Amino acid sequence: MARPERRPFGSRGRLVLGMAATAFSLKLGLQKGVPRGRRCMAIGAEGPLSPTVEGLLRRVRRCNNAATSLGQTRPFLVQGSTDLGMVLPEAASELARFPEVFRVTDDAVELIAGGDSVEARTLAVAGIFDRLREEARIPMLKGWRDEAWSVKPSFHSEAALVVERAAGPLLGVRAFGCHINGLVSEGGKDRLWVARRAATKQTYPSKLDHMVAGGLSHGEQPTENVIRECWEEARIPPEMSKAARSTGIISYCMVDPTGWGINKDAIFCYDLELDPAFRPVAGDGEVESFDLWDMKDVVDSLIAENDDWKPNVALVIIDMLIRRGHLAPEEAGYGRLARAVRQ
Amino acid sequence: MARPERRPFGSRGRLVLGMAATAFSLKLGLQKGVPRGRRCMAIGAEGPLSPTVEGLLRRVRRCNNAATSLGQTRPFLVQGSTDLGMVLPEAASELARFPEVFRVTDDAVELIAGGDSVEARTLAVAGIFDRLREEARIPMLKGWRDEAWSVKPSFHSEAALVVERAAGPLLGVRAFGCHINGLVSEGGKDRLWVARRAATKQTYPSKLDHMVAGGLSHGEQPTENVIRECWEEARIPPEMSKAARSTGIISYCMVDPTGWGINKDAIFCYDLELDPAFRPVAGDGEVESFDLWDMKDVVDSLIAENDDWKPNVALVIIDMLIRRGHLAPEEAGYGRLARAVRQ
Repeated sequence: MARPERRPFGSRGRLVLGMAATAFSLKLGLQKGVPRGRRCMAIGAEGPLSPTVEGLLRRVRRCNNAATSLGQTRPFLVQGSTDLGMVLPEAASELARFPEVFRVTDDAVELIAGGDSVEARTLAVAGIFDRLREEARIPMLKGWRDEAWSVKPSFHSEAALVVERAAGPLLGVRAFGCHINGLVSEGGKDRLWVARRAATKQTYPSKLDHMVAGGLSHGEQPTENVIRECWEEARIPPEMSKAARSTGIISYCMVDPTGWGINKDAIFCYDLELDPAFRPVAGDGEVESFDLWDMKDVVDSLIAENDDWKPNVALVIIDMLIRRGHLAPEEAGYGRLARAVRQ
Repeated sequence: MARPERRPFGSRGRLVLGMAATAFSLKLGLQKGVPRGRRCMAIGAEGPLSPTVEGLLRRVRRCNNAATSLGQTRPFLVQGSTDLGMVLPEAASELARFPEVFRVTDDAVELIAGGDSVEARTLAVAGIFDRLREEARIPMLKGWRDEAWSVKPSFHSEAALVVERAAGPLLGVRAFGCHINGLVSEGGKDRLWVARRAATKQTYPSKLDHMVAGGLSHGEQPTENVIRECWEEARIPPEMSKAARSTGIISYCMVDPTGWGINKDAIFCYDLELDPAFRPVAGDGEVESFDLWDMKDVVDSLIAENDDWKPNVALVIIDMLIRRGHLAPEEAGYGRLARAVRQ
């Protein structure tokens, strides 16, 4: 078969065929099976990974640890709409205690109280969560914050129901938030403001966090949330925060830290470039301190096997590292990481 | 069930429950079926779309038009590796004419010539494509360019085979390229350099294109491709092009314009911010003209139902529009678009 004198490619191709046989060594695939119902994966799912990509993918996996749990969930239905939430078995058992409000079957958890009225549904569900909270049976409900979250199939859909923030993951409903990369750019070099959460926070106390981040309350728009949270959390005045630039959205599906629910979160990401002379100041007691980190130190900390970071913060930072050229495409596994963080 | 005096949310929640019943109208879902084997879609797949998002999603769909064809493809195998390509029925019939090189079954198209040697496999396949080209049976092979493309399961994997660029889609193998958004930023306002392809180009003559874009030849790295193509296509000298910042990767799966194959492409995206005084100059005859467009005009042209743009250019521009804050998260369907363009 071999015709060694033949050179099928011209001057533009970089391959010198005579070198090919020694320069290449074919990595043999192990899978012999032929998949049916194929999907296009233009970025190969397999292939080598650099240590940096491997470390960052570990952070992505930590936020997407719900895969095995998802098969056990039942969809949360309101008026026949299937795409509102997903309920784990233990949570479904608790909700089944209130058959006048929830119809719990092997196939679904359906809200039956309140009929067509969003207000009546909301009150009915709030009554059940109040009772469960008084009984102290579900640890997740300790995190009660008096914050209203919309239950809706996508961000721009109308709400089917409004629930307290702490109860959202029990129904596995979508949650939306905003995270702001606070950046200082000088001479083509980026640094990142990193916050340490207060030791008294209900969730992830003392972990590293974004300069500013917050959940979207019912009816709140991302841009107004950014301006409000910039002032509340870091004393960044509106005339500065309005320069924040939206950069995309990341999402993940994580088992709630209490084990009782699913965090199905989407985060609107922003970059805010700040003057080197500006220092954020903890505003509302949620942050212990702010520090300006070199990007290399951020990457080194993220790829280390530590428990220093609030998990979802890593996803937003990885997206930023990709967008701003802090990860080179030459890094083995670059495409797989980019795909994973934006899934 | 309704207890109108009760107000389950405190001061932070934005909901005034008394207004809820009139302000909301529940959009009823039509699907009653309960899906099994659920996946987490933290960004709702459904929901309203703004006219801008609808127009941009049309561009994304145009590049991802292979869904129905994928079910008819057979995987292209080399030495048992399944994740190298996908072959349409008509192409498989042509390759079946050469049983000493390809074993074509109902389940797969397998390269059997060349054994463990990448060079021998490459020569065997090149011989077949030469013959098919001489016979002029397959229109795709008219686009012969003497450019060597690697066939590999992911960008950082080793090549299992090297084929001529024009023949790649016939085997449905992954192709990798680089696209560069040429940007001029003044006073927080971005403009984009838009090229018009030469009328003599083999593919997409006279269509609108990026300032610089090119396929990665076998063995070539993205950053060196950017610097080479910037000079060849737009006479941007290396001291300027080395400032190009990698911003991510987009991918799509499109039926080849000839209908004979699948374009399974991944594009490394770059932003290059240029001085307002600099003008790109057509270098190698591939470009007819360059024009600097206001971003609003770019968006208006992309959302219009025209055939002005090379299809994949739209994907890279949409990604840039999202990354650089030219699309607001308040735009209905923002999350769905962001997810679609980066799938």
